[in-house]
Amino acid sequence: MTTPAPRWKAPAPFNAPVSLRANVASFMALDVMVRARRREQEGHDIVHLEIGEPASPPPRAVREAAIAALDGRPIGYTEALGRPSLRVRIARHYRDAYGVEVAPERVAVTTGSSGGFVLAFLALFDAGARVAVAAPGYPAYRNILEALGIETVTIEAPEDTRFVVTAAMVEAAHAEKKLDGLLLMSPANPTGAMMSGDALRDICATCERLGIAFISDEVYHGLTYGEPAQTALQYSSQAVVANSFSKYFCMTGWRIGWLVLPDHLVRPVERLHQSLAISAPYLSQLGAEAVFEAQAELDAALARYASNRAILLNELPGMGLDRFHPADGAFYLYVDISRFSGDSLDFCGKMLNEIGVAATPGLDFDRTRGHHAVRFSFAGSERDVVEASRRMKSWLR
Amino acid sequence: MTTPAPRWKAPAPFNAPVSLRANVASFMALDVMVRARRREQEGHDIVHLEIGEPASPPPRAVREAAIAALDGRPIGYTEALGRPSLRVRIARHYRDAYGVEVAPERVAVTTGSSGGFVLAFLALFDAGARVAVAAPGYPAYRNILEALGIETVTIEAPEDTRFVVTAAMVEAAHAEKKLDGLLLMSPANPTGAMMSGDALRDICATCERLGIAFISDEVYHGLTYGEPAQTALQYSSQAVVANSFSKYFCMTGWRIGWLVLPDHLVRPVERLHQSLAISAPYLSQLGAEAVFEAQAELDAALARYASNRAILLNELPGMGLDRFHPADGAFYLYVDISRFSGDSLDFCGKMLNEIGVAATPGLDFDRTRGHHAVRFSFAGSERDVVEASRRMKSWLR
Repeated sequence: MTTPAPRWKAPAPFNAPVSLRANVASFMALDVMVRARRREQEGHDIVHLEIGEPASPPPRAVREAAIAALDGRPIGYTEALGRPSLRVRIARHYRDAYGVEVAPERVAVTTGSSGGFVLAFLALFDAGARVAVAAPGYPAYRNILEALGIETVTIEAPEDTRFVVTAAMVEAAHAEKKLDGLLLMSPANPTGAMMSGDALRDICATCERLGIAFISDEVYHGLTYGEPAQTALQYSSQAVVANSFSKYFCMTGWRIGWLVLPDHLVRPVERLHQSLAISAPYLSQLGAEAVFEAQAELDAALARYASNRAILLNELPGMGLDRFHPADGAFYLYVDISRFSGDSLDFCGKMLNEIGVAATPGLDFDRTRGHHAVRFSFAGSERDVVEASRRMKSWLR
Repeated sequence: MTTPAPRWKAPAPFNAPVSLRANVASFMALDVMVRARRREQEGHDIVHLEIGEPASPPPRAVREAAIAALDGRPIGYTEALGRPSLRVRIARHYRDAYGVEVAPERVAVTTGSSGGFVLAFLALFDAGARVAVAAPGYPAYRNILEALGIETVTIEAPEDTRFVVTAAMVEAAHAEKKLDGLLLMSPANPTGAMMSGDALRDICATCERLGIAFISDEVYHGLTYGEPAQTALQYSSQAVVANSFSKYFCMTGWRIGWLVLPDHLVRPVERLHQSLAISAPYLSQLGAEAVFEAQAELDAALARYASNRAILLNELPGMGLDRFHPADGAFYLYVDISRFSGDSLDFCGKMLNEIGVAATPGLDFDRTRGHHAVRFSFAGSERDVVEASRRMKSWLR
């Protein structure tokens, strides 16, 4: 006996759609920041070593440029690639800082380097492409790449190269995985390690020889404590360079950065930017153009990082935190905590709750080995660094 | 006779990598803007009807909020979902403007609605998903969706519904193509057509019944010339609403907007935003919070659009441009030009070069039928609209 097919079909239950790729990992440094701010609002005195954000205000020239534009004139969209005068100014920066000629037409102004990565990845890679990144490394790379359907190949950089990826490691990864791209940062987050000019030249040559697109993340350029950083543009006309006004230029909250592109990618990036963002924020573009004239204030900020770095280099070993690379650049120390904990998430949670010191678990940067490491940012005020040292000293005892 | 295999393999030529998805279409309105600005720099007097950008400056309260923050305090990252006070203020806007209760936790502050679309699409759809959009419609939808590997299903809305998509059309498209999502804008770009409350309710109910994620683009809310617009939040707790401070609130260049999300998408969007953008620009968030108090200036801007609209409604038919919907909202007229040309790209190019009137080819909005249409934006100054009418009148004769 069969039941007749129902004429009326019950509606399917609504099943709250969410994509698989929405499952990207969180950016733990930002989660820590939110928790730390919440504890501050609850009345706790928190010292912030979790975020790579200069404590300095934007330089005076930046503020003046923005204020001058807030006189009642419209503040509108700009050309998708950015205001022409800013693109010219950024190109000039390559001549001034590195002695490299860059045509302004190759510069794309982006909404922070974050916006630049999205554009560069989309312009270079289709879904299913394989792009190598370093571990430890900036967590957003992997999250953005995965969200865009690009497979990340992790190069686990060994501690004995200061976690720096070498051309030989790239070649080995390519032999095994057939890479379409490579993305490296120097000076690096979270380790502060910088490639030598020779090492960078070898990476560029290897990528060109193997037909691998190379993206050089240079957002920490300008922030070095010995030799200055070199740009991939010195060694390759095919490299894509990502940079930002957030770090050296003290303009995080303005969300402004840039890409330097090989000629054939300029129009694709322009088209993508038109639809994905329209243009970078207008006031931020004005501020960015002005910030190149703020040398004295930027030098003072750099001197503060150098002094903060010296404090930590002096204080940490006495607490039993003596395993780290002293940072050639950027404003982080990536510190081994295995003497105290094998669970950096738990360690950072307790440190925040018990002594009000916010720092970022190594897991954010290295999913396999980051259980044993913590990143301390020394971009903040001297008070934060001194006070954190004082609190940690007695806490770790 | 065989040649021995070479021991040394010549390097592969470097083949200038570029993705297939970099091949997204351009956003023609922005290309026209760049060309129009270039002609201005060459000394031509150009009237701008190409861009949906208010001629008004940002309201005084916005400027004052930004200037107050430019006093030397740091301007940093905010929480990825936005400053808590701004999220509360946006939630209150739903009570004030629509009588709808929205929890502040459901609001995500984004870098324009552009940034919001990228986040919403990634959070809702994996590569290969199918999302229906209307033609004519906003071109960036398709470009973003395609860049993210999502298939767009075009619903060719008929002229006799004022190009408005109905629930029956959605149902038919779903029967044929098995949709995962639907994305509609009301009032619409480029037609200015608005759904009735009943039509919107039917769309919401149909999507919930069929298990289709519905994204309601409400960026032109506030800009209506008769009935006010209704929000999808009145009819569905599952709809994703995208909105922006660019249009009604006159803040295009600030790149600031928001999403209202169903509860289960809040944390996925937060994670994606952390990595893809970190946070929306800080000054823009301050300005956005202040703009809700600028009612008088916003009303004045709306009155100017209404007056510009009346001028065009009066002038266009006399030129032989009499086939268009008079626009319930937004600030565009989408005008049939088939009496003069079957090639809107060529028509707009000539109009710019010969009489200095910039407008956007219909092809930007409808790839099959847009050859016969042009979009005129009346968001600009009265002078632009009057002068454009004068020039076009003699040119079309």
